[in-house]
Amino acid sequence: MTQAPIRRPDPDRRSRLIDVALDIIAEVGVAGVSHRKIAAAADVPLGSMTYHFDGMDDVLTAAFTRFADHVADEFEEVMCRAADRDAAVAALVGLITELFDSDRNLVLTIEFYALAARDLKFRSLTSAWMGRSRTALERHFDPLTARLVDALIEGLSLHLALEEDRSDRAAEVRTAIVRITTLPDPGAISSS
Amino acid sequence: MTQAPIRRPDPDRRSRLIDVALDIIAEVGVAGVSHRKIAAAADVPLGSMTYHFDGMDDVLTAAFTRFADHVADEFEEVMCRAADRDAAVAALVGLITELFDSDRNLVLTIEFYALAARDLKFRSLTSAWMGRSRTALERHFDPLTARLVDALIEGLSLHLALEEDRSDRAAEVRTAIVRITTLPDPGAISSS
Repeated sequence: MTQAPIRRPDPDRRSRLIDVALDIIAEVGVAGVSHRKIAAAADVPLGSMTYHFDGMDDVLTAAFTRFADHVADEFEEVMCRAADRDAAVAALVGLITELFDSDRNLVLTIEFYALAARDLKFRSLTSAWMGRSRTALERHFDPLTARLVDALIEGLSLHLALEEDRSDRAAEVRTAIVRITTLPDPGAISSS
Repeated sequence: MTQAPIRRPDPDRRSRLIDVALDIIAEVGVAGVSHRKIAAAADVPLGSMTYHFDGMDDVLTAAFTRFADHVADEFEEVMCRAADRDAAVAALVGLITELFDSDRNLVLTIEFYALAARDLKFRSLTSAWMGRSRTALERHFDPLTARLVDALIEGLSLHLALEEDRSDRAAEVRTAIVRITTLPDPGAISSS
């Protein structure tokens, strides 16, 4: 009789399973993900999924929390490094024009929104994500302006990603950020 | 022998199938839609799907084209009815705060984006949709401002829909639209 293999502890297994879940969501979408697919891709027994997660909602919550935290950490770092408001504006232009250079980030962001659109309980995650972005922006802008910049980042990056014309839009993005962060002079001549 | 039933022409069948496809996408997502489900929901034989559509991409193209045309038609009408630029700004505020009051429109929009994010060939549809919005906005704004307003509508309406705090944001949205449509005075004091 062969001896039972020594059971090696794997404290990082849950964390690794979360990464694999994100890879699978990026590949086949939330609709295509399953405990079985994650276990197979991570090369662990299926029981490991039920041991580490309390159902698919728990997997999705963990996966999208990690994704949002990762994006928010990077965003916070960029806002921290900006020495002043002008540097923050320049950094935002770079960030918006590059945010969805990777289709992976674009797909994961939209999958996350699709989930929150269908299921109210995931809106606490999208809310928390927006909250973190706005707090990072408040290093350089008042709270109202931070909310508006946050929405503008969303709209500009999505539109840049989803249109066919791939010409350089840095100047346009810069104009957008400058306008949204500037109190219009009541007497200013409008742009049309 | 019973007589074969008289074959009634159904010139609107393709159009009806497109509506049913949109209903199913709203309900279960692009990932859950199939010829079989559409035919069953529309109460037509499965062969009707293969007769009217050249595969699932054709169904999705027809469905999202109809959805985008419907939203763009309404948007164009709102921009047409606005007598001047101030009226256009007021109309935009109303539109942004109400756009995703219906979860159906939110879900269909995000499903459409998810499809375009994964598959380049659907970006011609998202591009065309943005093109129509911008053209409608150009009744009141210069082309650059129209592009920026279009992106801002996207970001604001998505953020309003995906956050938990449902307080009235009309004043905030108005501020955003006024700022993005106003040439900042080079000497203006910034808002922080």
